[in-house]
Amino acid sequence: MSPFSDKREETVSVLGEKALIKAIQAWTQPIGLAAPEGIGDDCALIHIEQPGKHLLTTDGVIYGCHFDHTAAADLAGEKLIKRNISDIAAMGGTPQSALVSIITSSHLKTNWLKNFYQGIIRVAKRYGIHLIGGDVAEGPKDYFSGHMTLMGKVKKPILRQHAEIGDSLWVTGTLGGSILGHHLNFQPRLDEGKWLAEHGRVTAMIDITDGLAKDLPTLLQNKQVALLELDGIPICEAAYELAKQTGKPPVEHAFCDGEDYELLFTLRESVELNAFKRAWEKQFKTQVQCIGRIQESGEKHSLLNAKTGKPLPTWYGFEHISS
Amino acid sequence: MSPFSDKREETVSVLGEKALIKAIQAWTQPIGLAAPEGIGDDCALIHIEQPGKHLLTTDGVIYGCHFDHTAAADLAGEKLIKRNISDIAAMGGTPQSALVSIITSSHLKTNWLKNFYQGIIRVAKRYGIHLIGGDVAEGPKDYFSGHMTLMGKVKKPILRQHAEIGDSLWVTGTLGGSILGHHLNFQPRLDEGKWLAEHGRVTAMIDITDGLAKDLPTLLQNKQVALLELDGIPICEAAYELAKQTGKPPVEHAFCDGEDYELLFTLRESVELNAFKRAWEKQFKTQVQCIGRIQESGEKHSLLNAKTGKPLPTWYGFEHISS
Repeated sequence: MSPFSDKREETVSVLGEKALIKAIQAWTQPIGLAAPEGIGDDCALIHIEQPGKHLLTTDGVIYGCHFDHTAAADLAGEKLIKRNISDIAAMGGTPQSALVSIITSSHLKTNWLKNFYQGIIRVAKRYGIHLIGGDVAEGPKDYFSGHMTLMGKVKKPILRQHAEIGDSLWVTGTLGGSILGHHLNFQPRLDEGKWLAEHGRVTAMIDITDGLAKDLPTLLQNKQVALLELDGIPICEAAYELAKQTGKPPVEHAFCDGEDYELLFTLRESVELNAFKRAWEKQFKTQVQCIGRIQESGEKHSLLNAKTGKPLPTWYGFEHISS
Repeated sequence: MSPFSDKREETVSVLGEKALIKAIQAWTQPIGLAAPEGIGDDCALIHIEQPGKHLLTTDGVIYGCHFDHTAAADLAGEKLIKRNISDIAAMGGTPQSALVSIITSSHLKTNWLKNFYQGIIRVAKRYGIHLIGGDVAEGPKDYFSGHMTLMGKVKKPILRQHAEIGDSLWVTGTLGGSILGHHLNFQPRLDEGKWLAEHGRVTAMIDITDGLAKDLPTLLQNKQVALLELDGIPICEAAYELAKQTGKPPVEHAFCDGEDYELLFTLRESVELNAFKRAWEKQFKTQVQCIGRIQESGEKHSLLNAKTGKPLPTWYGFEHISS
């Protein structure tokens, strides 16, 4: 359903800014904090009672880019908050407080926007996240984007670039074909990320948003390459389905599609693979798969086929800014 | 100068996302923190060493709304960060860390964007603000917006709704006509806001963004009205100039134009007006003016003329979402 309407009475233009902000406050009341801790003052006020480590991330969803007219409004809202939660998950943290801003054409349907916020609220409730502020601004015709800043806390953050030679490489869930639905209905791996951070032997972690082919190299440091067991790559059913349409091999979809929102992490060489997998399976229904190891190499190519020792085909992940 | 170009070689589309992010990291290196505290991991990591109060705010600038082709790119960047600093100033806080995100048409001029960031950097350096993260996303043709999340700290936050009956009402600087230049070249009243917060007898404070007519009522609580000395309203030269074009009285521009980014605050009834003004003038060149008092009233109208006791004409501030 298009978010926009030419019937003025259906759109936010009837409300004007003041009434629209009041409507948003009413819709989000179940997760909203009142000023000064929440919505209604110049800034949100955050009381931090104990010294510690906090996380701050920001991400958005743009109509026509991260979702389109085929997406239900509430799923677009869910996607906004889940994308941000996934970033917190990838550091092993817990989300706490969110700012939500929108930029919108004045002919956005009021009901569409209400449903967008309902999606945010549903997920925020599930994870105990409070809405503490935000902003509303007018954009050009047919434009809508939602933006979130999410703050969280973390005991022992898992960083990107702490993998060591010999570490095993793991991925949660399955990869590829996200455009067929997963990009909207994924579950951020928050519990999994926290458990991994507490496990103590995870050396590096990220969430896969641009695709394994593009995100995995960001884990690697100087002289590190990833030796990948291609048979072990967990390919999503949707990747097989999409491959029928595109004619590409399903594994290419698993490497390149992006928007998997799965965790990619490394475990110390000393961790016994089967023991780790058994411990994981006691905790989670989400599958986990060892897909290779970090090795030392002078190779220019950072992704190598473990069987042949040769570089993977030159696949590319999403290029978000293209000509 | 238009931010966009049809000559592909001048635009960010030549770079692609990865190279664009690298370019932004290079440009912002003077104020950037490296991962994990800054740019480069899934979230920014913030170490908070002592319990205390923190502030979080978010605001953006949209091409065609908050600036247009007549604005220099660096001034658009300055405006983005100064709008956010002004929110921190209005709570009496100190800004510390920023996330900066952009949404852009792929035919944005690379050089324009570089200058946009130069403006951000110039102001960030002046106030000791670090860049700790952000995001880059592609928007529709001819679209550009920049977004900031600004975090700060505060000892004694000054809130919006703590004014009491009898408090005097004050405003910094002069008001009106901001479209003639002030909306880009204003100075956020950060030192003034901090000094006021420490002064101990400021009861409420906000920054004027939507215009006095719209922002002043947000300071008032139930049964409070503002009794205004219209002769005392500090009208900007630009308001007089604009009035010649519009035929409206300059005072209407002072009340309604918005984007003044001046502080509006209340002082306890016990504070002697002249003594306060003398203390202020020892600190600041910025002018300050008492414009009225808070009174109790059952009146529906919240802004009254002190001379006549009658409601002010029905003026309206900006309506950001209009039909």
